[in-house]
Amino acid sequence: MTRLYLDHNATSPLRPSAQFVLQQLHGKPLNASSVHAEGRFAMAQLEKARLDFAQYLSAPHQGVIFTGGGSEACNQAIKAWRAEVRPFQRILVSAIEHEAVLKSANDSGLDVGVLKTGTDGTIDLNDLAQQLDGPPALVCVMLANNETGVIQPITEVCRLTKENDGLVFCDATQAVGKMEVSFIGLGVDMLAVSAHKFGGPVGVGALIICPSLAIAPLIAGGGQELGRRSGTQNVAAIIAMVAALEEAITELPLFAQLSAVRDALEVGLKEHCRAIRIMGEGAPRLANTSCFAVPFSKAETLLMGLDLAGISISSGSACSSGKVARSHVLESMGVDASVSQAALRVSLGRENTVQDMNVFLNAWKKEMGRQIASAAE
Amino acid sequence: MTRLYLDHNATSPLRPSAQFVLQQLHGKPLNASSVHAEGRFAMAQLEKARLDFAQYLSAPHQGVIFTGGGSEACNQAIKAWRAEVRPFQRILVSAIEHEAVLKSANDSGLDVGVLKTGTDGTIDLNDLAQQLDGPPALVCVMLANNETGVIQPITEVCRLTKENDGLVFCDATQAVGKMEVSFIGLGVDMLAVSAHKFGGPVGVGALIICPSLAIAPLIAGGGQELGRRSGTQNVAAIIAMVAALEEAITELPLFAQLSAVRDALEVGLKEHCRAIRIMGEGAPRLANTSCFAVPFSKAETLLMGLDLAGISISSGSACSSGKVARSHVLESMGVDASVSQAALRVSLGRENTVQDMNVFLNAWKKEMGRQIASAAE
Repeated sequence: MTRLYLDHNATSPLRPSAQFVLQQLHGKPLNASSVHAEGRFAMAQLEKARLDFAQYLSAPHQGVIFTGGGSEACNQAIKAWRAEVRPFQRILVSAIEHEAVLKSANDSGLDVGVLKTGTDGTIDLNDLAQQLDGPPALVCVMLANNETGVIQPITEVCRLTKENDGLVFCDATQAVGKMEVSFIGLGVDMLAVSAHKFGGPVGVGALIICPSLAIAPLIAGGGQELGRRSGTQNVAAIIAMVAALEEAITELPLFAQLSAVRDALEVGLKEHCRAIRIMGEGAPRLANTSCFAVPFSKAETLLMGLDLAGISISSGSACSSGKVARSHVLESMGVDASVSQAALRVSLGRENTVQDMNVFLNAWKKEMGRQIASAAE
Repeated sequence: MTRLYLDHNATSPLRPSAQFVLQQLHGKPLNASSVHAEGRFAMAQLEKARLDFAQYLSAPHQGVIFTGGGSEACNQAIKAWRAEVRPFQRILVSAIEHEAVLKSANDSGLDVGVLKTGTDGTIDLNDLAQQLDGPPALVCVMLANNETGVIQPITEVCRLTKENDGLVFCDATQAVGKMEVSFIGLGVDMLAVSAHKFGGPVGVGALIICPSLAIAPLIAGGGQELGRRSGTQNVAAIIAMVAALEEAITELPLFAQLSAVRDALEVGLKEHCRAIRIMGEGAPRLANTSCFAVPFSKAETLLMGLDLAGISISSGSACSSGKVARSHVLESMGVDASVSQAALRVSLGRENTVQDMNVFLNAWKKEMGRQIASAAE
């Protein structure tokens, strides 16, 4: 049985372009710190990849720090500052940030303020403006939320934060490859990228940072990445990430059309169940993401039933190591516990079609019926 | 022209077993935190890999933390402790540690003492015993040095440190896959592993830690690896690393025979030049490593000449991003600057033969002759 994979916000399979790169480069000894021919080849490929990567995201290439993934990038952006040069004295995080951002903020030793979210899943800019009143802050707001797909008003966040002489860190791990992302256009100071969310390899990502900022390494050692991230650079994976990014950006118009597939899903959901709640429906969202709930249904049971039927989806963030906990994202949107514990997330990949949504809807209706029958017993 | 790659301590090409794993797994969506079939497959594979990895290194599997590489493992071992549960109050590092260890120690905020090295490249145990007098220390001594291949007396280090109620962190990145390594047998509390040094993928490694120690994450977030290292686990690379480790351990008897190839090299060097200095010659060394110098010759020029002749070697550690600096390892062994700036490192892989050494020796003699002629002009 071919399975129907609808969990691309958790991880998306490697794109053909990235697979090709890895096949070409695997087996070559690539240490960009070595001065011999193999090392210089690695360095040349790495630096070309850096230029391309920076160009695809309209960022200064000197500001690109390749990391071991998105979580590492978030941890570095928030925690890796020497106190004497840290250009902020406190941290403001949106309530819907990923755990990597929330926990890093708590680990930073600085005062942490939490920014409110509206019921539509976007952050409350009035609250931000009020909380900015004080010493310079590092403001952490993600570009697109992993659970709801809701896109945040980052340019407004930057405008307000600059008035406070603060910095903006934007976790763009769910956005890159799914919408146009411009480091310069957004006006952020730091931006985190994760490769496997857009079909690059797992275990590689980047932190992009304004070159004038004197961030310290989270991982110290041999001095790679201009002293900002040590460890032998993962040249093959970095080049594969950049190839996947190029492919994803080329396909952005196709990706945008996934909103029609997603809308077909949501129309079908509403037709079957008028009580359904679609999270962030009124806000701008990623084209591929739908988070919905039938109040009082049980997400985990539905998930398992659908899994047995060959369909892979998620209930909230997949990064929580399989633990079933109420979503802090939905909670911050004021969603009642009876609804948030019922929430499912469908996140599409570029190959998904309206036909797939019909397959999903049929299976989902069956599981919903089973749950209602079981509750009535 | 086929090149002769003699820089395996910098990075070693991916082993066939690891390549096979990556080919099998690339293209599958593997997020071990997802609860659907793909996620459970990833988790099952990951946990099987953890058991195998622990078994190959005689370590408790609950103590295995998969990381993004050796540098990350070293940084976590030294820096990621909450002050209130940190079981040591100062750090003692051997003078020959890798930069990842030295810089992490300096970044830790604790007092750092440096342990002396003898002229043979092994650490001075009397000095260690003396410096241990005081509050409990974290003692950082690597298992095998990257530049000289000299193997350190870790069991003695552990015995002395335990009398002080201290902990031992052993950076085993150059040793694993090149000699038998037993976490329990050595008696260490923490041990760092890097995959690409033994033919696993770049960008993956491990920190093994006594399960009773409450280390904090260096990278916080989704709570993977029992809350000790967040970020989507790099399942494919981890399984490939374990496959490479199995292959390397099976081949350890073959690897040990590389000492005969290395000895043939060193006999040839001595026959050609009686002034040659072989570093750590009197100490137990990795079978594959030879670090040597003709006093007053120029390592960088030799390196470039050999590179043009198709031979890849290194001058000291390759992790220093191409910068030419005097080796702190050789300096700590009391090697004069006229010698240390002339030092070359040949590090063999399992495919290298005595015939390769003859090719190397002929090219090296030619370059040495050229350097002498140029100096005489």
